[in-house]
Order: sequence, then C-alpha cells, then structure tokens
Amino acid sequence: MNKPQVPDFLQNIRVVLARPNHPGNIGSAARAMKTMGLSRLYLVEPKVFPSDEANTLASGAVDLLERAVVVGSLREALSDVTVACALTSRRRELTTPLSTPRQTTPELIARAREGEQVALVFGNETFGLSIEEVEQCNRLVTIPGNPDYFSLNLAMAVQVMTYELFSHTEVDVEYLRAEGEAATQSEVDGMCGHLEQAMDEIGYFQRRNSERLMRRMRTMFHRAGMLREEIDILRGFYKQVQRAAGKASGDAD
Amino acid sequence: MNKPQVPDFLQNIRVVLARPNHPGNIGSAARAMKTMGLSRLYLVEPKVFPSDEANTLASGAVDLLERAVVVGSLREALSDVTVACALTSRRRELTTPLSTPRQTTPELIARAREGEQVALVFGNETFGLSIEEVEQCNRLVTIPGNPDYFSLNLAMAVQVMTYELFSHTEVDVEYLRAEGEAATQSEVDGMCGHLEQAMDEIGYFQRRNSERLMRRMRTMFHRAGMLREEIDILRGFYKQVQRAAGKASGDAD
Repeated sequence: MNKPQVPDFLQNIRVVLARPNHPGNIGSAARAMKTMGLSRLYLVEPKVFPSDEANTLASGAVDLLERAVVVGSLREALSDVTVACALTSRRRELTTPLSTPRQTTPELIARAREGEQVALVFGNETFGLSIEEVEQCNRLVTIPGNPDYFSLNLAMAVQVMTYELFSHTEVDVEYLRAEGEAATQSEVDGMCGHLEQAMDEIGYFQRRNSERLMRRMRTMFHRAGMLREEIDILRGFYKQVQRAAGKASGDAD
Repeated sequence: MNKPQVPDFLQNIRVVLARPNHPGNIGSAARAMKTMGLSRLYLVEPKVFPSDEANTLASGAVDLLERAVVVGSLREALSDVTVACALTSRRRELTTPLSTPRQTTPELIARAREGEQVALVFGNETFGLSIEEVEQCNRLVTIPGNPDYFSLNLAMAVQVMTYELFSHTEVDVEYLRAEGEAATQSEVDGMCGHLEQAMDEIGYFQRRNSERLMRRMRTMFHRAGMLREEIDILRGFYKQVQRAAGKASGDAD
C-alpha cells in the first residue's frame, strides 16, 4: 500500500499564536503542526522571533517558522478567515458557543474543503486569550481534561487540536500495516481438523471431551484473525506430531 | 453546573515508558498524563531517575513521579496487565493488530471499567520499542499523522493517546459553559416582531420588500441560539428607536 498524501485543504487551516512569550513554544508548536499536516503559522506580537531556540525545538519543521507570518494584531491574522476558534480552558463569561475539538472539527474540515480560511487561535502561555481576542473568534473550543489539573501547555494544546483535525481526514495508518494474506474460514477449519486428528493420534482425547475442547479451539483460532502463513506453521507442527506419534507407536509394536 | 470528577477506572490504565533517555521527557509525560486524569506511571530502566529536570517539567504532576514504579524489564511492568498497547509509528513486520488510538480506545475503556489492568507502552526516544518489547504487547497503536513528517516526540505521543482516552470518558466541558437562559422560539419571534414594528415606524420598508427581509432576520436570529438577556438588549434598543422616531415625527408635526 502506498504512502498517502496530506490533503491539500489542510493548507486552509492556520494556527495563530497570540502574544507567545517563550520562543521554545513557537518551535514546539510548529513541530506539532507539521506532524499533523498543517503548515501555516501566524504569530501575533511574539516576544522573541525569530530565534535559535524556536529553530531547535522545531526540529524538522523549521520551514514552517521560515514561512510564519508575523502580525501586529489578532485582527490582521484573521482578516481573511471565516471561522476562528479560540482555544480556552477557563470559564468565560461569554455566550460564544463552547465545544470540544471533536465536536467542532467536522465543521472546520468541511469549511476548509470548500476553500474557506479557518483559524485555530491560541493565547499567551500565562494569561491565555484576552476578552478582546476571544470576541474576534466565532467559537470557543475547550480540550476536555482533568478538571482538577488542567495544565496543558501551549504546544501540547496545539498537538491535541491538530491531531483531532488530522484524525478527521481520510488519511489512515493502513500503509503501516504489515502485509500478510488473511486465511479463509475454511483454511482455519481445515487446520482445526488437522489439530483434532493429531490430538487424537497421540491419545489426547482419551480422558477428555473432544467435542467441547475442539469447539473452544475453533472459536479461539477464528477470533485470532489468522494469516495463511500461521496456518502453514501450525499444520507443519501437527504433521510432525503425527510423524513422531507414528514412530513411537511403531517402536512399541 | 458542578465540576465533574475524574472517573476511578482511569486508575486501571497505566503508562509505561520503556528505557527513556531524557529525564525531561519523563516529567513532560507525567504532566501530560495528569492533565488527562491518568496517574500510574511505570518506568522500565530509565537512564536517569529521579531527577530535578523531570520534576521541573512535571510542573504540578510531581506526585506522579513520586509514585512512579521503576522496574527492570517490560515484563515486570506488564505482569498484571490484560491488554498492553505498543505505541509505534514505524512499519512493523508483525501480525499484531494495528489500530489508531480512536479505534482502540473503546475496548481499553471497557476493560478498565471492568477492573482489568491496561497498559500504554511507549518506547525509547531514538529507537522506539524493540521487537521483543512489541511482542509482549497485544495491540499495535499508531497515531495518525503526516506521512512525510512523523516526528511526534515522546511526551506529545503520551498527550495525544491520553487525550483520546479521556475524550471517551463521560467527563464533558459543560461545567465551563457560561450560564445564560436560552430564549424560547416565541421570545425570538416576539423580538423579531418588535424589530419589524420599529423598522416600519422609521420608514425602513418604504422601498424594500419587508416580507423577504424579515424572513432573513428571523432565520438569522433563530440560528444564533439567542439568550434571554440578548433579547432584552435588542428590545430595549428597538423601544429607543421607536421613541426617537416618535419624537422626530412629533417635531415634524
């Protein structure tokens, strides 16, 4: 199976960091974005940028930092955006709809697919988003978590939100799956029949209920989702058991 | 709405870090776990532990480090576990079932609820999990992401996986929602009627199709999910418009 492509519409989803204090967080956020196929980073009044620290923490995502757009206000970062989501973990005295990343993502994906520009807006590490910043957004998004310890740092929040977005694209992990030919039902049954034969030949059923026992074995092997190669290994083993038993009984004769 | 509790069964889900190199990652992983309500950390042959660096990065999650269980082998960390998930991003020549966090989480939650012990196993930062380690696990779990840049660091992977777990608990973000009484349909309609009246009184409909225009307004206000307080503000405004219009027409008389 070929490696899938990151869908183009993810380019219509930007991450906006409002007034970030620590250059390391900018770098880690860029790395988090790139792992989930996002590429457009906007920085509103970053305290320090560009910086070596951001570049170091961005690891292989320095290209996102090089193309980052630095602006003087959140308004500029959102001027061509139709839906902006304010990520917040505090209780807000605002009537903007509040949802989780999972609830809000399908709409964001649908809009981005249609060519609309969508923004995920993250506030300052210490103070979060100001009320004026939140008012410029259309949605409040809160990542669910431990109500007694909600201490998700900036880059972690970016990672979770972008993971959620990516998980709604059609890109699967199928291409990482090891190849192997699945066995058919009749191949599994044939193997079980062979096992029964071998068990019988070595006298395993003498003091046991063969029917009940074989039902358990068949259920187990069918549940395991067997591959053809595994069937071959087991049948080879049973054959060897039969051969050894034949020799043993031959010796006895 | 009261702050919800972290469900007890999350205590049956442990995070196992196999041979972690960097103490900072142990601290960040502990913090990530605690934000998502997990508390049991197992460390297999950590290079450095305990350490100041881990404590610093754990922030408010130092309690998890203090209660962390340090063991000499993955086997020890899994001895009482029924399902162990190996987090991996590489293609593996193994026939262990491969799934995403979202696919595998419902089963993990169900088992933990029943009192079974479940483990999430993360490998070394550079080498990942060894083949012997993966073979001790029942599931391969891969976080979906950019096929061309899969560079999720250890703590980020812990954050994403534990976020996914937490998002399947019944703990919602409802308690963070600002309170406000939702307006009923008839209150919205009444307000729209008032708007129509005010528009009419100031001569707004003279050269416009009032029916079509009011239909748009009604649709918009119904879509907005209005609160009673907002209805009051608007009706106060319309009243003022009517008063000003009356005065103006009085002046003209």
